[in-house]
Amino acid sequence: MLDTQTPRRRVVIVGAGFGGLSAAKALVQAPVDVTIIDRHNYHLFQPLLYQVATASLSPAEIAQPIRSIVRFQRNTRVLLDEVGGVDTANKVVRTAAGRSIGFDYLVVATGARHSYFGKDHWEAFAPGIKSVDDATRVRAKILMAFERAEVETDKAARAALLTFVVVGGGPTGVEMAGAIAELARKSITTDFRSITPHCSRIILVEAGPRLLSTFPDALSAEAKLALEAKGVEVLLGVPVTDISADNVMVGATPIPTRTVIWGAGVRASQAGEWLNAVSDRAGRVIVNGDFSVPGHDNVFVIGDTAAFTAANGTMLPGVAPAAKQAGHYVGRLIAARAKGLVLGEAFRYADYGNMATIGHSKAVADFGSVHVKGFPAWVLWSVAHVYFLIGFRNRFFVATSWAWSYLTYKRGVRLITGGDDAAMRAKKMSEAA
Amino acid sequence: MLDTQTPRRRVVIVGAGFGGLSAAKALVQAPVDVTIIDRHNYHLFQPLLYQVATASLSPAEIAQPIRSIVRFQRNTRVLLDEVGGVDTANKVVRTAAGRSIGFDYLVVATGARHSYFGKDHWEAFAPGIKSVDDATRVRAKILMAFERAEVETDKAARAALLTFVVVGGGPTGVEMAGAIAELARKSITTDFRSITPHCSRIILVEAGPRLLSTFPDALSAEAKLALEAKGVEVLLGVPVTDISADNVMVGATPIPTRTVIWGAGVRASQAGEWLNAVSDRAGRVIVNGDFSVPGHDNVFVIGDTAAFTAANGTMLPGVAPAAKQAGHYVGRLIAARAKGLVLGEAFRYADYGNMATIGHSKAVADFGSVHVKGFPAWVLWSVAHVYFLIGFRNRFFVATSWAWSYLTYKRGVRLITGGDDAAMRAKKMSEAA
Repeated sequence: MLDTQTPRRRVVIVGAGFGGLSAAKALVQAPVDVTIIDRHNYHLFQPLLYQVATASLSPAEIAQPIRSIVRFQRNTRVLLDEVGGVDTANKVVRTAAGRSIGFDYLVVATGARHSYFGKDHWEAFAPGIKSVDDATRVRAKILMAFERAEVETDKAARAALLTFVVVGGGPTGVEMAGAIAELARKSITTDFRSITPHCSRIILVEAGPRLLSTFPDALSAEAKLALEAKGVEVLLGVPVTDISADNVMVGATPIPTRTVIWGAGVRASQAGEWLNAVSDRAGRVIVNGDFSVPGHDNVFVIGDTAAFTAANGTMLPGVAPAAKQAGHYVGRLIAARAKGLVLGEAFRYADYGNMATIGHSKAVADFGSVHVKGFPAWVLWSVAHVYFLIGFRNRFFVATSWAWSYLTYKRGVRLITGGDDAAMRAKKMSEAA
Repeated sequence: MLDTQTPRRRVVIVGAGFGGLSAAKALVQAPVDVTIIDRHNYHLFQPLLYQVATASLSPAEIAQPIRSIVRFQRNTRVLLDEVGGVDTANKVVRTAAGRSIGFDYLVVATGARHSYFGKDHWEAFAPGIKSVDDATRVRAKILMAFERAEVETDKAARAALLTFVVVGGGPTGVEMAGAIAELARKSITTDFRSITPHCSRIILVEAGPRLLSTFPDALSAEAKLALEAKGVEVLLGVPVTDISADNVMVGATPIPTRTVIWGAGVRASQAGEWLNAVSDRAGRVIVNGDFSVPGHDNVFVIGDTAAFTAANGTMLPGVAPAAKQAGHYVGRLIAARAKGLVLGEAFRYADYGNMATIGHSKAVADFGSVHVKGFPAWVLWSVAHVYFLIGFRNRFFVATSWAWSYLTYKRGVRLITGGDDAAMRAKKMSEAA
């Protein structure tokens, strides 16, 4: 029986990504009051964000209001605010809006942002895609390049406008390059008068020796072949050495381009600074075997923000299933402690495999001993992603969008929005050029 | 037979709304080269924009890339740019990006923007909804008011946050008020912890004696009853005399509120200034019986930008069907002239009736001698709006969204986006408060 006389323990969860929501869900039956703090009012299904950036999906199709997700968890409230610091000694979280929120347990699940390896000035020319606003900006940038190319009379300038460079050969880079290639080669074929699908160049640059380095060699090779079949030029083993407004330096070779997408590196959010904790080179907080921060057994860091080393010495990967499992574990651990119990078991990561899609109907999937590629892998990928989307409506709309795109090769969401005025943006861009 | 030796006539259409697109379509077989200039890359189905602002639809569901719409009209090209002026003497349109585009025929169909009757400073506190960016901003503003109310401890401040005032009792105001009432009363019921559906006040203010003044009296009364049944307070016969950051003055009575939506007045775009033409008080260019501008028989103004008086003395209303019919007429007129012919017939407006919806399942429709109200009118309204949407995909998605909302009362698109960071916006708002 619960002791209703003692005050209920307060759990603060910062970040409503896969990890944070999973922790909240595991606490639904616990005698605690949960506060989820996020700077957006929605949970974002980041694995599909590249499809917003390439005009296949609307933001709302991969986002769900956090309040709506936890509406039946009566012990959970949601606060739209941004954390600015943590006072671990006094057990208080401080927010941008000036609030001080006390906690007994703190779960930090604030994810990661882009890292330009110290070249932060590249960001202006090579945006990455982590938020809805990032994605709609990149979408506008890509669509705008076609618009400008259509009216550009200078041949070299037009070629630069129709050259799209994706930096980084991980899943993000592979998915972006494949999607841009299809947008350029298949979706807008009849729409323009001056440019044709063959005018576009899509280049994927990876400094390492192969694409998808966390996948088996054979699938890396398959991904390269599939991308090349879609018209992507894959450059391996050459680093990007500089990025400016109209050039990417690949090794010593300049590639004139006006559109660079960054998919090369991430860095954990600044949780390490808030907690004054020891972080690894990527900014991830080095956590104990129960995801607690050394010295603070009531503060947990999970997901892309944490560096978790398993008993066998491997690092927990920065993927959605790992964040979810960590959230679930930490939630159960807190629930047990709130009841005066101890969670006996240690965290064990269940690795269900790894997938990456290459455009319209190809993917690679690595399930340890089983490798799948081509169309079957794409079907698996599609089913898994629809399944893990939150909300019936989103599942239905994404599945329908994909079916429609599959049949027609069209892109449904080719809108240049934000900043009110595409034409004024075009003007600014041509003035800057 | 066409004389292929003479250069093809150049038609420039400014604005890809209902009127502009209709003109382009009527020119598809004509021996002319058509250029459509728009400052957005998409055609927007404005009659449903209020549903974007109230989180029912995604922007992409009511927008379609202009290029995609005219992709099979091989004589038509699309230019993403903004017109800055017209040189009628030299037959040149000048654009914001510095282009000069020559024309033989010019069709101006640039629509209308909001008018604050000389009180332009009201705009900052009472935005209207004319563009996608307007709508997503208003959506963020409405959703943000609920977020702020949820954490507001001061009772009066909370009441002001949960008071939504819509100014103007025309179709826009009626539709907005009904949609906000349902959002507040039905859609977000279980999502918040501190606020309940009954905390919200939705007030519709109309200076005239009745709502929907262009409709018959009986339907105006019906609209008022239907709104009141949804919990909207309808204030008739009182003008708004001032709007500030935290108050609307209705007559001499202040209503504390943080969210005001403007639906009271529009003013034609600045085509009159470009053309140095005579305009009426609402800024609409006074046109001849063939939509040409007096003194320029090759320059036409249509849609909300034109003041067109029929032979019987009535003004052509500022609605989509009127703009479409005018575009069709002017397109045929230009096509005839380009072939050296004269279009014999005069323009005749076919009035198919007038509809306005009141939230979830009620509407009023006026077909002259036949009036329809309630659920049957709502079904008619829904079918008509889906039918007139451009693109199979949009029709399908809007119809499905509506079916889903109808069954669940949920809103699918409750995203606070733009400006990157809802939390920082909250902070700014609370600092400003």
